[in-house]
Amino acid sequence: MTGMESPRDIRARIARGQWTKPTTGLAPAYAQANLVILDRKYAFDFLLFCVRNSKPCPILEVLEPGVTEPHATAPGADVRTDVPLYRVWRKGRLEQEATDITGCFDAGMVSFLLGCSFTFEASLTGAGVPVRNIEEGKNVSMYVTNRKCASAGPFSAPLVVTMRPIPNDLVMRAVRITSRYSLAHGAPIQVGDPGALGIRDLDRPDFGDPVTVKDGETPVFWACGVTSSLAVLSAEPELCITHAPGHMFITDVLNETLAAL
Amino acid sequence: MTGMESPRDIRARIARGQWTKPTTGLAPAYAQANLVILDRKYAFDFLLFCVRNSKPCPILEVLEPGVTEPHATAPGADVRTDVPLYRVWRKGRLEQEATDITGCFDAGMVSFLLGCSFTFEASLTGAGVPVRNIEEGKNVSMYVTNRKCASAGPFSAPLVVTMRPIPNDLVMRAVRITSRYSLAHGAPIQVGDPGALGIRDLDRPDFGDPVTVKDGETPVFWACGVTSSLAVLSAEPELCITHAPGHMFITDVLNETLAAL
Repeated sequence: MTGMESPRDIRARIARGQWTKPTTGLAPAYAQANLVILDRKYAFDFLLFCVRNSKPCPILEVLEPGVTEPHATAPGADVRTDVPLYRVWRKGRLEQEATDITGCFDAGMVSFLLGCSFTFEASLTGAGVPVRNIEEGKNVSMYVTNRKCASAGPFSAPLVVTMRPIPNDLVMRAVRITSRYSLAHGAPIQVGDPGALGIRDLDRPDFGDPVTVKDGETPVFWACGVTSSLAVLSAEPELCITHAPGHMFITDVLNETLAAL
Repeated sequence: MTGMESPRDIRARIARGQWTKPTTGLAPAYAQANLVILDRKYAFDFLLFCVRNSKPCPILEVLEPGVTEPHATAPGADVRTDVPLYRVWRKGRLEQEATDITGCFDAGMVSFLLGCSFTFEASLTGAGVPVRNIEEGKNVSMYVTNRKCASAGPFSAPLVVTMRPIPNDLVMRAVRITSRYSLAHGAPIQVGDPGALGIRDLDRPDFGDPVTVKDGETPVFWACGVTSSLAVLSAEPELCITHAPGHMFITDVLNETLAAL
């Protein structure tokens, strides 16, 4: 699979079970999305959680109960088959991973597609700002912070952040570029002070991999979509389906259009 | 009442029944909001309508069922008393206007505060861009367009726009300034071509007043919060409470912070 395939072609290949790996680098011009599927009885409260915490949980599209096609962001797609790897959760505990969730999806389920930092990583790289996790072929470093999100109904979570070390003289460029993508976590929430977020050791992320921080670089922290996963699990819903980390839903929305809304 | 009073003081005066007029020009540094109150059974679908149509319906805050205090945007305020004039609707028809809706508010009701163009009008004026409706002491001109909003459940509406005539050499400045306020309708949706929106006669707005368009000026169209009112009425809910046009809820949120989110 190459970066030149269309999102539609890639999704079709995923739906046929021919790609079950992470989606990093696939169709890099297009926005990828976090996926959360919940029963309608949680839909208002979870949507409200996302609205109240739009930096970690920027809403790309919400499908009404039972709807499987994201008409706005990926016409013709199917949220039950087009993610390479799903996770199925019961009462907040991981039950299984699956490449197709058609069997667990019912007419009451509401699907949420939330923006992802892949969108701004492409833009950073394109503007000469190095992205260490890409350079080192690692998953981005993620940390649970001491900041609480605004809760909504049964949904609450600490803010989770990603960290990317940025050369000192490129920090403002990184801030300005990512600020454009409010539907992909937007501007950093903190620059240079892990302790202010309650992060004790950058080498020990809570999720993902540690990356090298070089002399002359500043750790920069962005809100992270994993926040939404923690919020979902906090509510312990009977059933919840998400993408597996890094195995995102690929939309037809050009990253650059997200910067122009 | 002067422009120097704090939002809190103005709200208190309104709650005491001492101000029942439109709120234009009050506490001009602070964001004012459209108010929509609906029963919880409509809450997910209406919130989804707002998310899907964020230009006409930018969400400032949503209160959970029965909650009357906007903790995020106006701590200490009460949505039942702090708007100068309310409208009470039954099954989509206007039943009464009131200065206090404590008697109709119950524990199932969800309140939505949506951004308002007063926010960017202050910024336009401050940057030397004339705002004709303010100059002429009129209500802004509003038009129902030929564009349909994305519907959600029982909520649907045509896009309603406001029009402000802008001197040709200031149009780009007006676009750039208003683009900063995505929570107050953001960038214009159309510049210079009323016909493209299905508007036949600028002198006959569907709501508000006509204003003078001078030689050398371009009509510029922004999404309008009245869209949300039409959407609410389309669903014909048993009960709905809104602000009366121009009689907004005044928040503690500085306009400029909305430009920095």
